[in-house]
Order: sequence, then C-alpha cells, then structure tokens
Amino acid sequence: MTRREFAGGLAGVVGAAWAHRHLGVLAAQARASVDGDRVNRHLAELSAFGKNPHGGVTRLAYSAADRLGREYVTGLMRAAGLEVRVDPAGNILGRRAGSDSSRKPLLFGSHIDSVPDGGNYDGDVGSLSAIEVAQTLGERNVTLRHPIEVVVFQNEEGGTVGSRAMAGQLEPAALTLTARSGKVTRDGIAFIGGDPDRLESAVRKRGDIAAYVELHIEQGGTLEEKKIDIGVVQGIVGIGWWDVTVDGFANHAGTTPMDKRQDALLAAARFIEMVNRVVTSEAGRQVGTVGRIQALPGAPNVIPGTVTCSLELRDLDPLKIERLYQRVHEEAQRIATASRTTFTFAETHRSVPALTDPRLQALIENVALDRGLTATRLPSGAGHDAQYVAQIAPAGMIFVPSVGGISHSPKEFTKPQDVVNGANVLLDTILRLDSTDWT
Amino acid sequence: MTRREFAGGLAGVVGAAWAHRHLGVLAAQARASVDGDRVNRHLAELSAFGKNPHGGVTRLAYSAADRLGREYVTGLMRAAGLEVRVDPAGNILGRRAGSDSSRKPLLFGSHIDSVPDGGNYDGDVGSLSAIEVAQTLGERNVTLRHPIEVVVFQNEEGGTVGSRAMAGQLEPAALTLTARSGKVTRDGIAFIGGDPDRLESAVRKRGDIAAYVELHIEQGGTLEEKKIDIGVVQGIVGIGWWDVTVDGFANHAGTTPMDKRQDALLAAARFIEMVNRVVTSEAGRQVGTVGRIQALPGAPNVIPGTVTCSLELRDLDPLKIERLYQRVHEEAQRIATASRTTFTFAETHRSVPALTDPRLQALIENVALDRGLTATRLPSGAGHDAQYVAQIAPAGMIFVPSVGGISHSPKEFTKPQDVVNGANVLLDTILRLDSTDWT
Repeated sequence: MTRREFAGGLAGVVGAAWAHRHLGVLAAQARASVDGDRVNRHLAELSAFGKNPHGGVTRLAYSAADRLGREYVTGLMRAAGLEVRVDPAGNILGRRAGSDSSRKPLLFGSHIDSVPDGGNYDGDVGSLSAIEVAQTLGERNVTLRHPIEVVVFQNEEGGTVGSRAMAGQLEPAALTLTARSGKVTRDGIAFIGGDPDRLESAVRKRGDIAAYVELHIEQGGTLEEKKIDIGVVQGIVGIGWWDVTVDGFANHAGTTPMDKRQDALLAAARFIEMVNRVVTSEAGRQVGTVGRIQALPGAPNVIPGTVTCSLELRDLDPLKIERLYQRVHEEAQRIATASRTTFTFAETHRSVPALTDPRLQALIENVALDRGLTATRLPSGAGHDAQYVAQIAPAGMIFVPSVGGISHSPKEFTKPQDVVNGANVLLDTILRLDSTDWT
Repeated sequence: MTRREFAGGLAGVVGAAWAHRHLGVLAAQARASVDGDRVNRHLAELSAFGKNPHGGVTRLAYSAADRLGREYVTGLMRAAGLEVRVDPAGNILGRRAGSDSSRKPLLFGSHIDSVPDGGNYDGDVGSLSAIEVAQTLGERNVTLRHPIEVVVFQNEEGGTVGSRAMAGQLEPAALTLTARSGKVTRDGIAFIGGDPDRLESAVRKRGDIAAYVELHIEQGGTLEEKKIDIGVVQGIVGIGWWDVTVDGFANHAGTTPMDKRQDALLAAARFIEMVNRVVTSEAGRQVGTVGRIQALPGAPNVIPGTVTCSLELRDLDPLKIERLYQRVHEEAQRIATASRTTFTFAETHRSVPALTDPRLQALIENVALDRGLTATRLPSGAGHDAQYVAQIAPAGMIFVPSVGGISHSPKEFTKPQDVVNGANVLLDTILRLDSTDWT
C-alpha cells in the first residue's frame, strides 16, 4: 500500500501535466469528475432487470432479463453520444472517434450479466462507470486522440464468452454448451443480437486495441479490511482444477473393526486438512479449496468405499500452482499408504494466469494517488473479461472495495462513494492513457 | 478364545450326559450330525431366487423373488416334517410338537430376504440350517420335550420388521413405510400371506418362548482372521445415529484469502478425523463411522458454507456410546471455535444394546468345544432379529466365519464346512437346551 496526500489538487495535476500534449485535455482533466449521483442512479435503475423478491438479481446471460438490461445500457450509451453496435459475438460496443485517425481505440467496460441469485455490483459497476466516463467526456466536449470504445461483454459469468470471442479464444464446441438461462450458447448469441456464424468478425488482433481498462468490484475483502480505496490489479490468477478419487473398501459399519477399515472418507478428510496445510505453508496469496465432495455409497451405516472431491489451486504464478500441486499429490500418496486407500487425480481445467500491463498498473496507481485516494496492488482471485483481452492488448484493472468481500450474492454491496472513486480513477486513467507514448 | 480338544468324542458327550434325563435324546445327540451336503445344496438352490447376473441375489422383502424363496423354504420345512403356517406378521413358522405339553417352544431360525445386490449367506445360512436341524431330528425320530419352531422372519434387512412384530415392537407407522421392493409395508405383509390388520395375533409375550437361537454369518472378519470356528455372540450392539451440521460461510474460492475463510468442509474434515481418534482412543470393540456427507453449495470454486454428515456410534455398552458421544461433541466445539464454524447435533436414531442370555452363551460355547471346534465370545456389530426376540425370551446367537468379513455384497462367502459346523452347533444347542432346567 502507498499513500500520497492530495495537497491542493491542482498541484498534483500540474505535476502530471508535463506529459500532456493537449492543453484542452489537461484543462478537462483538471476539472473533470464523473457525476457520482448519476452513475449510482444508473446502478439502481439497472437493478430492476432480473430483480429478485429477496434482493439482488438473476440476470443470466441470454435470458429475457439480460436482454432488457442490455437495452437499458444501450440507451445510456446512446445518451452518452456513443455510436452503438452489437458485434457478431453479442458484445455491445459504443464508440466515439478520436482526433488522431492513426490511433487504435482505448477500450473500457465490463459486463452486466449475473450469476443466479447474484448482486447489483459485479460487472454493473464497471459497465455503468465506463458509460459515465464516456458521458462525462462528451458533456465536456473533450475529444481524445484515440477513439474510445465502451464495451459490455456478453456472458461473463457463464465462462467469459464475449471476451474469449473477441480474443479469438472461443472454441467452436463452446457454442453447443447450454447456458444457465437454458439456452444453447449459439442460440443465446443470436437472441441478444449477435451472429454465431460470423464470430470471426468479432475477433480483434494484437494491435487492434490501444489498451483495455476494466473497473470492477474486488469480490474479496482485502481493500475493505485494509481501508484502501483503489486496488491496482497485478493480474488474474491462474486456476487448476482436479477431480480427486479416493478408493477404499465399502463395508458394514457395525461389523468391521476400526483397525480393519479402508475408509475412503477418513482418507479424504485427511486430504482436505492436508491441502489446507500445504497451501498455507508458504507466504503469498495462493489459495486452495476443496469445494465438492461425495462419499459412496453414502449411508450412515456403511463405511465409505469411494470418495470423489474437487481440488482447486489459484495463484498469479503458474509455477507455484504446479509446485503446490506436486506437494499435495505427494502427501496424498502418504495418506493413501497409511489408510490403505488409493488417490487418483484427474486434471479437469487449467487456466494460465493473465498479467496486467505494468505500465498500466503504474498509471492507475498514480492516477489514484493524484486523486488523493489510497491504493494497493493485488491479484484478482476471480476471473474477468480482462484476462482474455490481456492476450491481445495491454490491459489494466481497477478494483473498488466490496463490503465484507461478499459477491455472487444478493448481499453484494459497494458503497456509492467507492463507485464514484472507481469511476473517477477510470476517467483519469483513460485521459492519461490518451496522452502516453505507448498507446 | 478358548479351545478344548475333542478327545475321543464320546467322553465329552458322556460327561455332559449327567445332565440328561432322556436317554433317547442322549443317544441321538451322541450320533447326530446334520447332513452337510444337503444344507449346502439347499443354500445353492435358494440362491436361484432373485439371482443377479453378476453374482449374489437381490431378494428384497415383499418382492416376487422373496415370495418364490419363501415358497421354496416352506417346501423344505414340510419335507422336514414340520407343520407350516404364516403368522399374521408374515413370518414363516414350522412346528413340531414335543413330548411335554407344559413346555414352551424352542424357537430357532433367521431370515431369507436380502439387501439390494446382496449375497447368499446373510440370513440364508441360519434359516436353512434351522430347517436342516429339524429334518435331522425328524429323520432320527428324536422327539424333544419341547415343541420346536423353525422361524423364517420376514423383512429383516428392511428393519427387522417380522421380529419386531413378534416382540410387539412394530409401531403402526411402520406399516405405512415404503420398503425397498417398492411396496408399502402393509401391502407387502399381505403379499407374503400375512394379515396386517391382525398383527397383535403375531405377538409373543415373555414366557411364550422357551428360548431363541439364531445361527448367522459373522459379517465381520474377526473369526476368519483369528481362525476360530464359532462365535458366541454376547449381544447385539446398541446404535446411536446423529445428523451433524457444520455451518461456516460460503464464499468465492478465488477471492477469499485462506485466513479469512469459514470453511465448513475443512471443519468437517477435522471432525471426521477426530471421531476416528476418539473412538480408537479406548480399548474395546466400539466403532464410530461417518458414512454420509454433503457440502453446500458443492462447487469446486466455492468455499463450502454448510456441511451435513452422519455420525454413528455402536457398542454393547450404552454408557460407552454416551461417553464417546460426549467426547465427540466436546471436541467438535473446539474445532468450531478454531475454524469459526458451528456444529449442531441432532439425534436421529438410538437402539439399546440387546444382550444374549449368559446361560445360552455358556451352553453354545460348551457345545462348540465338545464338537472339537474353537470358539470365542464377541459382540455383533450388525443388527439381527435376535435383538428383538431377546426382549421376550432368552436368546442366543451362533456366528460362523465370513470370508474377508464381507457382507451385503455378492462377494459374501462362508465356506461349506463352516456352514456345517454352524448347523451342527445349532443342532447340539437345541438338544442341550431341551434338557436344561430353565427352558
């Protein structure tokens, strides 16, 4: 964590001004802030689409609520003076031209689809703040050198489908999967105005985008706990998933003495405890989780013969994931020997970590400090569209605090002032990116 | 374990003979053994009813296979010269009168219904050996002082329904339960020839039965492992069942640092390990099992917020069950505090231990030793019809080895010689019971 006092405001801005070539932009930046009431009002309005009686929303990608929400944000984009289109992948893009026709667009945005029983901040904060930034710039008649493109990616919660399509990473089989709304992805894309037969036209190549910036709620509790305003995301962690099968021997729980058992659930219990010990035995932000378990045959009076459970490991460093996995695997063999069971591991998913651009990290941090906000660098434990866009463009992410670290829940909450802080940091980031040499 | 060599056979029998009043019986006892080939052939024939392609049987109570099996054993009973009837509870009873009309019957038998995918020995060995004993006595024209009654209890595997009915312990609600065959118990009883509206006529009171003896496979592996021929059952253990609920807090597995978690599954894992430690920390044959577990929401990428699991404790001593439970409960509170979770226990079932009659234990042991067999006393970890009959009559149980301790499985197996040993011990037990003062 770093902190620099915001002493007099203008002094900081003038200090940064040496890098600026366009005085109009500088003037705008010195004055410009987003309309905080408006962006929070838009958040409240968007929450009507898919609203649940007990709070929060269920706005599953490709559902009627999703389409209504998309119509709502499309309207906001138009009101912000953006030219709106839906790309063949179903992503909503709102564009405004820049003054320098040789420049590639600055892309910023997030998503508005939710998980079942989700909240009103995950995705929404970043999407509506991006529109707010565009509207603020438009109202102040600030024309940037770069074109700007506000993006609302489709189906982030169901597997970052829109951003994968943009990065050319959506394998054809993904179109045949049934989304949580009940629609097959191919039909869902058509339902929201995309064209699943022309996905290649949605692909952007390296060099097509000057930079991508995404504002998002943290979803974890680090910022809130440490009372820090802004998180500068170092990257999105890589994830490894394994299915773990423990084979023992099912037997009568009444007639089999304790020392004659091959209890797969007892072995699995030792495994779960061991995973926790191994993951916490090294310094760092790595996490390891056993979230799913089944014991067979699963009766109170039968010693479990087989247990299946999940293992998940996440870290920014793929080598650390691999090292932790190797330790877990080794220790599992020891548990197997001691309990006369066997452990089998099957890898079911692996995503590589996606690092954000170091220049963008520094830029976001400076912007936050210049606004008198506190900031810290941290990894994102959750997946985001930024991890796919990072494959084709310099990408950065801004986190704002999430009360209690709760997300994917109706209890998800980010304070209005934190939303405003995030939107202003996004605004300044876009302005400052516009004046850098490398975009 | 005790062992007495069978030195000369007749010497032992003559030693026991002093207690005998009827020389005819003594002569029969000196000579009589069951027809070992015949009882094993009957076992093979019974296995045809409900036979599974992969081995073993599925002869669920009240199924067509059950009824065919019952017709088969009814035929064997008639061939053995028994008068057969089905009592209103659906139990099959085959009777032969005794010479002393003041005597109450010696009851012996077991059951022939199976679990799904069961084996050919659990229940069958005791039922067919009981018929074999009656046939052997009949063929040798041995008339006992007591009437004998061979019993095949109905639906042992689905909750000892027949024996509970005989003991007056079948609550009316039990008739409304759907059995594993798919039939409601009431209809099932009618299907096998009982009369569910006259169950009270099936009840026997204390004093109605002189003694009950049941031969059964051990189901555990103690006899086989110690190379002992006969198990003298001290009693059927009591059982306590609890539903255990662990409440933590479900959260995002990527964004929640390890030290901020309230992982209900990690706490449950420590619980399972602790149950094993507590149960094995005292000498004795007590067992404790966690056989069922569910983690919610149960996704690989969500920290489990709630876990439910079963806890089962069994022992011959109800005070030991209670003491173990109290220790488990106390230690669970410590795990709860350390893991910031809560543990809730709900008792779902409790059966008190059923002790066998000490005179019958000694008698069975002596009979086995007099036959030159080895014997040991041990508890039954599994439930049996004997535990209910023990409430109304002196009861004893004879165990024979079960290879690998496997039961409730197509792999269940008892060697033909062990079946013969068991049947002969049952025969001698009935003969010697007939000459005791207390029956």
